[in-house]
Amino acid sequence: MLPDLTNMDTLRDLLRSAPGIGVDARAAATERNAQLTKPPGALGRLEDLAIWYAGWRGEARPCIATPHVIVFAGNHGVTAQGVSAFPPAVTEQMVANFQHGGAAINQLAQAAGARMDVHALDLDRPTGDFTEKAAMSDAECLDALRRGWSAVDLSADLLVVGEMGIGNTTSAAALCHALFGGNAADWTGRGTGVDEAGLSIKTQVVARAVGLHGGAGDGLSLLARLGGREVAAMAGAIAAARVLRIPVILDGFICCAAAACLQNVAAGALDHAVAGHQSAEGAHGALLQRLGKDPILSLGLRLGEGSGAALAINILKSAVACHSGMATFAEAGVAAGN
Amino acid sequence: MLPDLTNMDTLRDLLRSAPGIGVDARAAATERNAQLTKPPGALGRLEDLAIWYAGWRGEARPCIATPHVIVFAGNHGVTAQGVSAFPPAVTEQMVANFQHGGAAINQLAQAAGARMDVHALDLDRPTGDFTEKAAMSDAECLDALRRGWSAVDLSADLLVVGEMGIGNTTSAAALCHALFGGNAADWTGRGTGVDEAGLSIKTQVVARAVGLHGGAGDGLSLLARLGGREVAAMAGAIAAARVLRIPVILDGFICCAAAACLQNVAAGALDHAVAGHQSAEGAHGALLQRLGKDPILSLGLRLGEGSGAALAINILKSAVACHSGMATFAEAGVAAGN
Repeated sequence: MLPDLTNMDTLRDLLRSAPGIGVDARAAATERNAQLTKPPGALGRLEDLAIWYAGWRGEARPCIATPHVIVFAGNHGVTAQGVSAFPPAVTEQMVANFQHGGAAINQLAQAAGARMDVHALDLDRPTGDFTEKAAMSDAECLDALRRGWSAVDLSADLLVVGEMGIGNTTSAAALCHALFGGNAADWTGRGTGVDEAGLSIKTQVVARAVGLHGGAGDGLSLLARLGGREVAAMAGAIAAARVLRIPVILDGFICCAAAACLQNVAAGALDHAVAGHQSAEGAHGALLQRLGKDPILSLGLRLGEGSGAALAINILKSAVACHSGMATFAEAGVAAGN
Repeated sequence: MLPDLTNMDTLRDLLRSAPGIGVDARAAATERNAQLTKPPGALGRLEDLAIWYAGWRGEARPCIATPHVIVFAGNHGVTAQGVSAFPPAVTEQMVANFQHGGAAINQLAQAAGARMDVHALDLDRPTGDFTEKAAMSDAECLDALRRGWSAVDLSADLLVVGEMGIGNTTSAAALCHALFGGNAADWTGRGTGVDEAGLSIKTQVVARAVGLHGGAGDGLSLLARLGGREVAAMAGAIAAARVLRIPVILDGFICCAAAACLQNVAAGALDHAVAGHQSAEGAHGALLQRLGKDPILSLGLRLGEGSGAALAINILKSAVACHSGMATFAEAGVAAGN
């Protein structure tokens, strides 16, 4: 069902040739939507979401029964530069917290009725400090992409990918700066909460990293040099969902930076994805604009873990429940408007 | 547990003397929030919502188990003026749709795990056309307030009230214009979807109604003259929840207009309420500002029925689930930030 990722070019080819939304199902869902017992357009964004979901699932009247949340964790050599308010050991401590059910994402996945898996990626082997060398070799990056690629439950009908990795907003900022230009300061934010001095260091680190690696090539080449294992795994999972036509809800800044690497390779690589929320991390709004995604929620979250996207599962489930569960005007014997 | 509403003044007194948020529980919840395994503030609005909910429930670590959605329906004499895109018969047809589970609110309540009740209020006796006379006598209004007052499940731990009533955005616009001033056009919108000519008629109707009744007195007096049975019942249910300290999620324009009548009587009457969403009905944003409420969602809904508030139940449940279910730094052995 899901082809092997033999190398980076396989992924590039798959992204470029992946089938798009099911136009017949989308048309049938649009027709059904017009007959439901409500004034035209009165469910606003919920109508668009339901029709989009129906198109990707290839069913005019779908349901969401098996959402899957996957949290990937990785460690970053760049933490040696003092870019985070938390020590690197917190990555592993939080993985244990995920495994014991104590983190925010555990509660949010449960509240959304989603299965949740955690993948800790070689935490004892941080990526290289990308101010000095590539974070990963192409082979290491391919390995991380594959870990994400194969982590997706083939029976999932909705995917959320989240992350944990002290230092990874720095990685995400560097990827955005390399992919979209501008200044390092445009893409660098406070992450888990660095102070003014920390933000200044972080911005310089991002500028140096992109100075060193910015010309490396396309999104996947940049992902190896400036990403992290969990960032690459997120990209791998989002790509697998694209091939499998499993709709994705994107999370915050790091998830969207991973997604942006795929979009750089193929313009339609994220057609199966919506933005779950706009986070409080400074550059997330600008990144969502570059991705052409309008966030479902905007509640000031800046946690990562997939938290904002998991929260948005409830909205998408509700949208699809309305679409598939409501009566039509004819079924209910309700007079339509003039 | 809930005192009788013997007359309108009983309600005024109860609103003015009702106890506020539990400050001890709020303080304990604030302290707990600071210890949870996340950077400070990283759950954004979810943290504020959970602390607010904990305060109103008087528990540092609450859960939401029994949310209650009540939909009230009423018919409006003002429909004779041609203010709606739908015929008045649709109110009763939609009540049947609610009873058979076919409406949007049925799906949304179910998706949020909420009990849902429907109360059809004397549909065969529309209120008076308030361009000519009072919509209701004080006695009729008191009766409708009581129907809402007694409809709230005493064991509910969260309340949403919704409505159905062809013509009721005109009633809500007239209430807002009378309560908050400005011009009739500032408060009059397209409702279920009137065209340009319909909007012009509706605006004139609102202006005439407020010209006739605008000086009637406080929010409850205006409610009788310009409201509708379902609007008054919503106000009664929101007031009962205030006395019972059951938190409320407000829905769209009509629900908020009902709530505004209470706030006019007692400044703290809506302290137990949050705004579930900002609807696409033109004046809802301005009304939320007058109520001092920041909407949780903004998804372009303009359906009523309690739909936007029911959708927001998921967000509040998720917020409380994080607050009460997450591990603390000490429990999880996670290092706090610097």
